[in-house]
Amino acid sequence: MVKLIKSAGIAHHSYFIGASGRAIVVDPRRDVEVYLDLAESWGLDITHIFETHRNEDYIIGSVELAHTTGAEIFHGENLDFAYGNPVKDGDKFQFGNIELEVLDTPGHTLESISLVLRDLSVSEDAQMAFTGDVIFAGETGRVDFYGVDRRPEMAGLLYDSLFNKILPLGDQTVLCPAHGAGSVCGADIREHDYTTVGYEKKTNHQLQVSREKFIQLKTAEELYTPPYFQKMEFYNQNGVQILGRLPYINALNPRILKNMMKDRLCILDIRKPTSFAGGHINGSLNIWREGVPAFAGWFLNYQDPIVLVDDHDHRMDEVRQSLVRLGFDNIYGYLAGGFPSWYLHAEHLDTLNLWSVHQLKEELGGDFFLLDVRKLEDHTEGYIEGSHHIYVGELPEKIGEIPQDVPVVVYCDSGYKSTTACSYLKKCGYTDLTSVLGSMTAWTNAGYPVVNE
Amino acid sequence: MVKLIKSAGIAHHSYFIGASGRAIVVDPRRDVEVYLDLAESWGLDITHIFETHRNEDYIIGSVELAHTTGAEIFHGENLDFAYGNPVKDGDKFQFGNIELEVLDTPGHTLESISLVLRDLSVSEDAQMAFTGDVIFAGETGRVDFYGVDRRPEMAGLLYDSLFNKILPLGDQTVLCPAHGAGSVCGADIREHDYTTVGYEKKTNHQLQVSREKFIQLKTAEELYTPPYFQKMEFYNQNGVQILGRLPYINALNPRILKNMMKDRLCILDIRKPTSFAGGHINGSLNIWREGVPAFAGWFLNYQDPIVLVDDHDHRMDEVRQSLVRLGFDNIYGYLAGGFPSWYLHAEHLDTLNLWSVHQLKEELGGDFFLLDVRKLEDHTEGYIEGSHHIYVGELPEKIGEIPQDVPVVVYCDSGYKSTTACSYLKKCGYTDLTSVLGSMTAWTNAGYPVVNE
Amino acid sequence: MVKLIKSAGIAHHSYFIGASGRAIVVDPRRDVEVYLDLAESWGLDITHIFETHRNEDYIIGSVELAHTTGAEIFHGENLDFAYGNPVKDGDKFQFGNIELEVLDTPGHTLESISLVLRDLSVSEDAQMAFTGDVIFAGETGRVDFYGVDRRPEMAGLLYDSLFNKILPLGDQTVLCPAHGAGSVCGADIREHDYTTVGYEKKTNHQLQVSREKFIQLKTAEELYTPPYFQKMEFYNQNGVQILGRLPYINALNPRILKNMMKDRLCILDIRKPTSFAGGHINGSLNIWREGVPAFAGWFLNYQDPIVLVDDHDHRMDEVRQSLVRLGFDNIYGYLAGGFPSWYLHAEHLDTLNLWSVHQLKEELGGDFFLLDVRKLEDHTEGYIEGSHHIYVGELPEKIGEIPQDVPVVVYCDSGYKSTTACSYLKKCGYTDLTSVLGSMTAWTNAGYPVVNE
Amino acid sequence: MVKLIKSAGIAHHSYFIGASGRAIVVDPRRDVEVYLDLAESWGLDITHIFETHRNEDYIIGSVELAHTTGAEIFHGENLDFAYGNPVKDGDKFQFGNIELEVLDTPGHTLESISLVLRDLSVSEDAQMAFTGDVIFAGETGRVDFYGVDRRPEMAGLLYDSLFNKILPLGDQTVLCPAHGAGSVCGADIREHDYTTVGYEKKTNHQLQVSREKFIQLKTAEELYTPPYFQKMEFYNQNGVQILGRLPYINALNPRILKNMMKDRLCILDIRKPTSFAGGHINGSLNIWREGVPAFAGWFLNYQDPIVLVDDHDHRMDEVRQSLVRLGFDNIYGYLAGGFPSWYLHAEHLDTLNLWSVHQLKEELGGDFFLLDVRKLEDHTEGYIEGSHHIYVGELPEKIGEIPQDVPVVVYCDSGYKSTTACSYLKKCGYTDLTSVLGSMTAWTNAGYPVVNE
Repeated sequence: MVKLIKSAGIAHHSYFIGASGRAIVVDPRRDVEVYLDLAESWGLDITHIFETHRNEDYIIGSVELAHTTGAEIFHGENLDFAYGNPVKDGDKFQFGNIELEVLDTPGHTLESISLVLRDLSVSEDAQMAFTGDVIFAGETGRVDFYGVDRRPEMAGLLYDSLFNKILPLGDQTVLCPAHGAGSVCGADIREHDYTTVGYEKKTNHQLQVSREKFIQLKTAEELYTPPYFQKMEFYNQNGVQILGRLPYINALNPRILKNMMKDRLCILDIRKPTSFAGGHINGSLNIWREGVPAFAGWFLNYQDPIVLVDDHDHRMDEVRQSLVRLGFDNIYGYLAGGFPSWYLHAEHLDTLNLWSVHQLKEELGGDFFLLDVRKLEDHTEGYIEGSHHIYVGELPEKIGEIPQDVPVVVYCDSGYKSTTACSYLKKCGYTDLTSVLGSMTAWTNAGYPVVNE
Repeated sequence: MVKLIKSAGIAHHSYFIGASGRAIVVDPRRDVEVYLDLAESWGLDITHIFETHRNEDYIIGSVELAHTTGAEIFHGENLDFAYGNPVKDGDKFQFGNIELEVLDTPGHTLESISLVLRDLSVSEDAQMAFTGDVIFAGETGRVDFYGVDRRPEMAGLLYDSLFNKILPLGDQTVLCPAHGAGSVCGADIREHDYTTVGYEKKTNHQLQVSREKFIQLKTAEELYTPPYFQKMEFYNQNGVQILGRLPYINALNPRILKNMMKDRLCILDIRKPTSFAGGHINGSLNIWREGVPAFAGWFLNYQDPIVLVDDHDHRMDEVRQSLVRLGFDNIYGYLAGGFPSWYLHAEHLDTLNLWSVHQLKEELGGDFFLLDVRKLEDHTEGYIEGSHHIYVGELPEKIGEIPQDVPVVVYCDSGYKSTTACSYLKKCGYTDLTSVLGSMTAWTNAGYPVVNE
Repeated sequence: MVKLIKSAGIAHHSYFIGASGRAIVVDPRRDVEVYLDLAESWGLDITHIFETHRNEDYIIGSVELAHTTGAEIFHGENLDFAYGNPVKDGDKFQFGNIELEVLDTPGHTLESISLVLRDLSVSEDAQMAFTGDVIFAGETGRVDFYGVDRRPEMAGLLYDSLFNKILPLGDQTVLCPAHGAGSVCGADIREHDYTTVGYEKKTNHQLQVSREKFIQLKTAEELYTPPYFQKMEFYNQNGVQILGRLPYINALNPRILKNMMKDRLCILDIRKPTSFAGGHINGSLNIWREGVPAFAGWFLNYQDPIVLVDDHDHRMDEVRQSLVRLGFDNIYGYLAGGFPSWYLHAEHLDTLNLWSVHQLKEELGGDFFLLDVRKLEDHTEGYIEGSHHIYVGELPEKIGEIPQDVPVVVYCDSGYKSTTACSYLKKCGYTDLTSVLGSMTAWTNAGYPVVNE
Repeated sequence: MVKLIKSAGIAHHSYFIGASGRAIVVDPRRDVEVYLDLAESWGLDITHIFETHRNEDYIIGSVELAHTTGAEIFHGENLDFAYGNPVKDGDKFQFGNIELEVLDTPGHTLESISLVLRDLSVSEDAQMAFTGDVIFAGETGRVDFYGVDRRPEMAGLLYDSLFNKILPLGDQTVLCPAHGAGSVCGADIREHDYTTVGYEKKTNHQLQVSREKFIQLKTAEELYTPPYFQKMEFYNQNGVQILGRLPYINALNPRILKNMMKDRLCILDIRKPTSFAGGHINGSLNIWREGVPAFAGWFLNYQDPIVLVDDHDHRMDEVRQSLVRLGFDNIYGYLAGGFPSWYLHAEHLDTLNLWSVHQLKEELGGDFFLLDVRKLEDHTEGYIEGSHHIYVGELPEKIGEIPQDVPVVVYCDSGYKSTTACSYLKKCGYTDLTSVLGSMTAWTNAGYPVVNE
């Protein structure tokens, strides 16, 4: 009885395993109600929590879950955690007929472990493996967290973990990685919830090469590292304060919000690009709702109160949860009644210029700075003529590259990240900004020319 | 055990009464699951359905509910219904200690009845009264459904129903009307779920006057009558086809939707004004989600397939339900992925111009046609200088009054109805349109001048 | 916008009032999620919490809710609370057009207040009143919390509160009391969620008498006071620890549970009488699920771990919530898999003898002790010949009255409380016990003779 | 994007596949809301329905789902279905990058097909296979539906399907069968939601043998065939009437139920053995709630109204759904208030004798007929001395083997089926019946002797 629990946006996968009256949770998230509810509805007692590694992209919920349930926490021995118990290669945990064996699988991090699940009532063969960030559907874990110099070393470790530990489990083994498609923890993870050792052996391009070539490939891999990762690493090594109930967020009327704006404040507008463009609060940052988990960590800090602006008052808990998973407990409130309450209050509005790709096509070559904020590799594969590249997440760092005295037109994959970029640039004082709706996806669908280098 | 069930948008109130193992439903709506669920969770058998009158603003669910449960339907004797059983003044229904007595209370319609609930284990005094459209919190029912000529007659009947039937129940009686605030079935209903005979006697301005004055007031009352009311009247007299499960709506990709647009089609864009303004499909009608129940009936027909466009794919069932309540079973599908899928497909976009009230203030007196689409009485109470009045719902009828050769700037109470108006005018060929965000509410909040006649 | 929130079992009514962007909560319960969810879905900020009095029958959630939201707490000035702010007669709180006025309404307790809600946009007349334990549907508050001697004094205060404060609000006023039918805080509350001043004036038998007679009636009233009330009074005057998330309860297998039984432990079997009788764990106390809120306080203590036994694993959160409302944070776990896991594990079973009323009729006059555990007044109204009366809740106190050497046959209203009684007596060493299914209800329905004194 | 939907009790697995804006459903059940809801929440249009074979154990929802959505139905060509479209080996369906290929895989039935899912953007290798009743986790499909004579022929076909079609897909392939643990469609299916070709190849005992041996094994396999299978086969070949909304079930008070009992009626008591034993309605059949999907088909007919009796009024929809899946649209009502309302009404009660295994141990050898109602193979593996075997489902057929003049003591695996058996025997006139709580599970746990032949 294994249940996959997905945390949207960061594409985090945790697992709830029921065996012999007990529940084991692998890599829990910080808002742990989902595990508590499962335990109750299945009549299980949560007794074991495993961390496949010290996670970087979210706050692990081990301490929270252990605090609530009394369960014990286990993780790899090669890092000095401030909590929990170390386990080592070959350690076995027995739950009735179900056995979980620990494999030391360093590479992504030094203390990475995998867990092999066997149903001993059936066979000694591995049935499933929880591989953390060692291997994903179509990908392998990133090896760049210890600095550029140690990449080859880590890549070598990863190769050995894969070829000496994971692949020998046999083609039949179902793989349960810690991330799905969309995560920044792998370059290009496929949209398959479950994969198998056999399928990866046949189709994962990184498993088709020699150790040497593998190290070369992984060493050359350039992945983005949002600044909040540092905080996560600290928390996930040292533990984070107990959350209990999710933070209450205040329903703010425009008058109160306006008053708060005199002090430092992060107004996070989570509407779609069209709605943000139609009107928004001056100084607000736009990250569309579904983009919050993945992009908030690039732009938000842990001090200023965060206030949400949406079209309406629904489903604030989703955003609240996704921020809490990243440790943004400084979420304070939301504009009650949604953005309309702002303009009904006769507050001043800002708007943003939007272009369709057809307009961009017509204007191309005009007097503006065309900015591509996609990932570098997407840009490299093909871009619109004349565009300059800065990844959206790196705008704070590289803003100096963008001229202040000409109009800036921004595109990305679809028009979401470009609008985030525009909202950020506006906050930084840029005034003539345009976001391209549909961006490269629409541009390509329209058959417009793409430059390949 | 009385439970109020509200249908949002049309502010329809139905009631579920549990007594002695049986359930009685007063004025059920067409999507009857809510009653079935209540019955099951309380262990009750639905046996009686009462209609306080032939409703005009939604399809009554009596036939649907009777079909499913075997319950019997009862309504006033002064209309020739094609289904159900007539009841007359003084008829009593006993459910254990609970008694429901029928009162003939014509005025709103000729066959209007009210139901008095007494708990005979306590007293012969009325505890509650289900008054249909006879009296609301702060209002009384409209009397204009039989034509201008018969208004005085109906108003007289209503006065007599109120003063001879309802008020004599005693100040202690809790009143349960068929509509709450926002309904078109009363001019200005208050936001009180429950009121009492005593509270209305003291505070309802229409009960403070003589019979003569009452007739005069009611005869002079001008309320809007959406064209779909006719269909409702027909259905509610003759019965409507059994619905069963709510209609399935197809998830349409842009290619399929574009193809459908070659034929007659109603694209109903349910986004907020800012999002609609930022980009929309050419030829689409904008009625914001919460406005659909109240405004769809002015603009939609019963033949053309209806396709919904929202920002995303959530909560389509709400809109589906609200359309089905008005008989729009011709709802066909929705743009899958929301509006972004349209521009990602590189389809052409339309935008709409938006003004804040501050911009309007600056531009006032310029060369444009300023259109006020609020209710007439709101206009009469105070308007922006130079504006022409046409109620949004009457645009189809009075479009000839709007010049084609100058820009048209539209305002309403808040910017929602004005955007609906703009989207309608665009469909009709007008090209230079502006909707004012915040409209009169913001205008007033900004302290800008209002003209009173 | 007023929403009634009921806590089942103790029939506690709290109220959530939305006005002008803010939410006011009257008498919140300790598991406050319901208010937080309402606030979020309506876009309101919880800023005010009112306590109508120091409650005795549950832990008030004011401190919990204030801790989470930052709202302020208000209560009557005539008690020295360790938290919150005192208010006094005539204090007014304004929320837009909505006004809440404080009335000093002592009688039930000295610091009891009522809150009058007026919609000033409509009238100066009272629309609703939140009356705490001053008046209920068909009842008035109990006056016995300050000892027998002070009953007349308190009754006098209550009379004055009713006749000088509540009734003068006018017949039109909707009354919102702190308890509904089934509460021990009123002798015989009716099943009407809402009542009115007018309806009570006409039908509440206690309002039909002189002050003198009223005092006499109330002074003579004998109501039960569960021992846990003392704890509630302490907590509700001094504040209770913050709860946060509801306690996690462990899923215990029979082996673990059996092991725990070596130490002090409260096994609370929440199944129906038939199921408990068919087989149960030796030493377990049976209180059917819905009876837990009302009867746990008579039998449970605050030290021993509480373990639940049900037929299955569903809906443990309900019981958990109801125990937490009474401060039983010592809830520890539940038998995983329900009672069947106990016998599947080959543990020893106890059974309980059940009689139908027909069997009782046949056996009447035989050699057994017939015990009536209903409320005294029910017994007084009519009982089965030869029965001795001890209220179920008072068994711990009066157990000496029950002989050990003859069979004991127990009846109540329906067979639930009698089974609770049997389970308690069994724990105390009684061995020959029979519970009568259906009890007085069935006895009467069967037409069997009842003794009236 | 593949989602497994389980129907509890019959352990039926259907699959919802999302690809390129469309949804494909494999083997839908009759209550199709689950698919409609998934489609809406994921923004997909249901266009294709595949039946892996004519199912025997439930009514397939293809016709229902096609009626609602307009989707097309596809199934194997080797049976003359009254609806849908035939497909043949090698047929391919393309949904963007996702390809579904049809494999002819006869053996369980002649028209059985499997569907291979490939993600062509990744590889030509099979990623998943939907294998219907060809192979399960640890099992293969039964081959006995065409009569004893054709078993070897069907087993041979199955072997070839397995070895020539399924296994060649490669060890990496995730297998998605139509049934999970507990289904009667396989002798002994494991509790693994997902398995792989590789895991089965290594661990499935039936795949370790020669073709000859396989045929021999499968031919010898004896599985139970409930009588309702015939109805299912007819419906699933010819189509069944459209269901729409689930049937309404009446809340019956004891008086009404008693009146109905004068005519033919099936009272289905869904309580646990202890509760049923403690008291029940004379003539009622006891199948515990979770056992209804699997055992109703042995005892219920399609004519008599079915009335449910539970401890309470909750979750009737679950039982209603599970009956409708088997075509029991003749579900009529439930005893409102649960079983307690029966005895409160002073109706006569029956009880059932229960023994613990310890009591059975003591009484063993006494003058009673000891009946084992488990599956034959469980009996063969080990039984209690002196017991006679008749499978619970075959009681109607073999009742003549049970003597009428001695007490009958019944055991099964756990005490559930034995109580069902007792309730059935009671209806047939047997009077001295005892069910053994815990049965063989407890017997073994207690260490009592088991006879092996």
